[in-house]
Amino acid sequence: MNKKEALKIYHDHIERIKAYHLVLATADFDSSTIAPKKGSAYRNRMLSIVQGEAFPIQTDPVLVEAIDYLNSIELDEKTKREISLAKKDIEEMLCFTKEEVMEFALVQMNAHDAWLEAKQKNDYSIFEPHLLRLIELTKQRTLKKKPDAKVYDTLLDDYQEGMNMKKYDAFFKMIRKELVPLIRKVGKKQDLIDDSFIFRHYPIEKQERFSKDLQKYLGFDGSWGYMGVSEHPFTNAFSRNDVRITTNYDEYNVIGSIYSIIHETGHAFYEHQLDPAYDSYMKLSDMSSGMHESQSRFLENYLGRRKAFFTTLYPKLQKLFPENLGDVTLDAFSKAVNVSRCSLIRTDADELTYPVHILIRYEIEKMIFNDEIDLHDLPEIWNQKYKEYLGVDVPDEASGILQDIHWSLAYFGYFPTYALGSAIGAQIFHQMNKEMDVDGCLARGDFKALTGYLKQHIQKYGNLYDYDTILRNATGEPFDPRYYTDYLKDKYRKLYEL
Amino acid sequence: MNKKEALKIYHDHIERIKAYHLVLATADFDSSTIAPKKGSAYRNRMLSIVQGEAFPIQTDPVLVEAIDYLNSIELDEKTKREISLAKKDIEEMLCFTKEEVMEFALVQMNAHDAWLEAKQKNDYSIFEPHLLRLIELTKQRTLKKKPDAKVYDTLLDDYQEGMNMKKYDAFFKMIRKELVPLIRKVGKKQDLIDDSFIFRHYPIEKQERFSKDLQKYLGFDGSWGYMGVSEHPFTNAFSRNDVRITTNYDEYNVIGSIYSIIHETGHAFYEHQLDPAYDSYMKLSDMSSGMHESQSRFLENYLGRRKAFFTTLYPKLQKLFPENLGDVTLDAFSKAVNVSRCSLIRTDADELTYPVHILIRYEIEKMIFNDEIDLHDLPEIWNQKYKEYLGVDVPDEASGILQDIHWSLAYFGYFPTYALGSAIGAQIFHQMNKEMDVDGCLARGDFKALTGYLKQHIQKYGNLYDYDTILRNATGEPFDPRYYTDYLKDKYRKLYEL
Repeated sequence: MNKKEALKIYHDHIERIKAYHLVLATADFDSSTIAPKKGSAYRNRMLSIVQGEAFPIQTDPVLVEAIDYLNSIELDEKTKREISLAKKDIEEMLCFTKEEVMEFALVQMNAHDAWLEAKQKNDYSIFEPHLLRLIELTKQRTLKKKPDAKVYDTLLDDYQEGMNMKKYDAFFKMIRKELVPLIRKVGKKQDLIDDSFIFRHYPIEKQERFSKDLQKYLGFDGSWGYMGVSEHPFTNAFSRNDVRITTNYDEYNVIGSIYSIIHETGHAFYEHQLDPAYDSYMKLSDMSSGMHESQSRFLENYLGRRKAFFTTLYPKLQKLFPENLGDVTLDAFSKAVNVSRCSLIRTDADELTYPVHILIRYEIEKMIFNDEIDLHDLPEIWNQKYKEYLGVDVPDEASGILQDIHWSLAYFGYFPTYALGSAIGAQIFHQMNKEMDVDGCLARGDFKALTGYLKQHIQKYGNLYDYDTILRNATGEPFDPRYYTDYLKDKYRKLYEL
Repeated sequence: MNKKEALKIYHDHIERIKAYHLVLATADFDSSTIAPKKGSAYRNRMLSIVQGEAFPIQTDPVLVEAIDYLNSIELDEKTKREISLAKKDIEEMLCFTKEEVMEFALVQMNAHDAWLEAKQKNDYSIFEPHLLRLIELTKQRTLKKKPDAKVYDTLLDDYQEGMNMKKYDAFFKMIRKELVPLIRKVGKKQDLIDDSFIFRHYPIEKQERFSKDLQKYLGFDGSWGYMGVSEHPFTNAFSRNDVRITTNYDEYNVIGSIYSIIHETGHAFYEHQLDPAYDSYMKLSDMSSGMHESQSRFLENYLGRRKAFFTTLYPKLQKLFPENLGDVTLDAFSKAVNVSRCSLIRTDADELTYPVHILIRYEIEKMIFNDEIDLHDLPEIWNQKYKEYLGVDVPDEASGILQDIHWSLAYFGYFPTYALGSAIGAQIFHQMNKEMDVDGCLARGDFKALTGYLKQHIQKYGNLYDYDTILRNATGEPFDPRYYTDYLKDKYRKLYEL
């Protein structure tokens, strides 16, 4: 085998693998947004078959040989990274049989359907057997992949290359130490900022109209993106020029959908703004979860919670809802979207309490995969942690353990990347402010200048480097979570006059 | 090989083939409804790869052997029909290579995109090279399948088992003879019925609201069906319990979307009401186009154009659009939806002129595949035929040769089944009226009784029998197009007081 032959084998295979990815992603988007419920059992079975069809290509000995060969020779930077990541993937795939892959896909899809039903009916017992089966399978699969590592360490590394419990323990310890006291202090000044108008009645049809203005402002363009509606908002990139996001409307919370749209648009830009040269690769556009969340939460919080973000948008919102917002000033509105309150729902949480929601999930996942708890106690443990860290009583399962989609998809180890991503974002935001007039851009409605900055310094690189290297290149420093805690302490001390 | 082994091979293979069908159908529905335009080149390429992936399963020699064996032994009625149709399919597939299948799929998808752009820009030159290529490939492919038959005969048989030019010539000759004189007479009484209020301004948001009432009335239920929006309305069944339809709204024609929804719901019920025993087969649920159109046009016309159809619906429509319909009585409205007028657009045509739109397409397709014309003259020929048969001048390509989606999908030979299906529907309608009080059901809003009748007598059989046998079983007579011409002559003579 020579280099040219090996590369041809590699590219021919990933072309086929990407074709399966595309149809499976399309089916997944369809299932999560519009697919009729009664068809789901059949659909799930068929989709697991298609997963199985991809398996012999993904694990083709000819591909293994080509990858091994390429790994042994000199390659340019991009191909080297691509091939090293592909090697990791294929070694993991080879731990399983086609039947195991199909079974896991089917269990996953059925678990997701059960979660949806459980959440809608506010009944955890519908989801519990599926969750326990997913946990069991995840443990087995993870041990197959890395028999000598701790299961949760492997899972954390899956979503964020190089991370493990030791590093996250240190990170969350700092979060807890720096932020929990501030959360307590803010808790004592709950009357300072009025945000009651956020929770008035906002008919969904009108919210949908505003979301069009918002997308236009953000530059999320229908020629390369599409937004649907799903129970839990998500982003799914079919290709650089075909990025799907979803949102969810709550007629008694006008900012719920707004912040979910901004968040998912952050993900969408990351996919859309990749270097076009990556189109012929596979792994270079497969960014880590932490980096992805750094971009989504960047738009959501570091940009989307600023007063200047609303300079041109807020008058449109007011005009749509004069009865609710007619007498609310831009200043009052922009304070209200930053109210910090210990609450139940992660996705609706303010920036300050948000990492504590993540901390809770991190601690629970650690207990699950370190075999430290009886899994039947999960809802009880969830509720205890919410009481302990956030002081809130969980009134029902739908707003407790059933609130997030992730476990239903077996995304164990994903949650911590939300906090990590927020911290990465803070460091980038600090640098951005040194280089440009962020509020000026926002106030002018020049959002493109800001997404352009992210493209140039972060997004175009995709998965070519790990997050630490990206940060060094973009900010001149390695990852430092101090930027995150400093940002939050500074922001919330000012806001709450502490 | 024994029967059990052969059946296992057959069912294992069709399970995989159906899995590919499902993801390709999902991708197709996605592409036609929501997919961002810039992603389509990549998407089409990937989908043609997936088509290619299915090919070795569809043409597996082991499957061929099993089908041949099964065809040689005694089988129950259902399995016998299934296997004989599967044999026909596989013999056709074996005429091609995987590469040819992939190429044709890609040409087709790109042609569809080009048609969409051409129609939107009212510029046939964008579509023409794609159309000519599709015609050329269709000729080649059809001759490969049946070298000794006339190309157009083969195409007609593809969409309606047993049909050919000779039979359609006779059918359309009768249509022309019976209906064209009546159309002329009706043309002279154009002032008799006022339908101007149909074409007032009807905001799409409100039309969408009415379409929910309409779907509810028809019994098109979100638990097994979903409706999207596309340039050209269509139905795509993913499974018996997952049937997708689309519509298209015109803010200056309130009945355009109404009749497209009723039409597609007719298709949807056919798929939904199949015998559940067919779930484990493939070909038994693959109904002929003529039978399918008989059911869609049944709902659209034989039920949907009756005054009683609107008894409970019309007040809702009036309430939504008081400024347009407040002073229009139910009687006036139900007359207006039946106005016969020589017009440009097939899908908006009334029942009487509709088959003439089909006749025009039939004659043009015949000329194309009998090599009787210079293909560059197609738009001119289209316009001449519209002038000749319907007396209308075609003002632009978007409302002329570009109006229909079919040719962009290489559905050559499909159009005639619309007229055939209408005629089949007339015969069923004649029988239905003998057995039940159709207007009574409509007026009570008991649409279920009517779809129940269709299920019992037609739909549950799926593709177990050919259309003639289905008609004999349901009506006691073989197919007789007199029911169609008699129905139209009777209806329009009364309506226009002739």
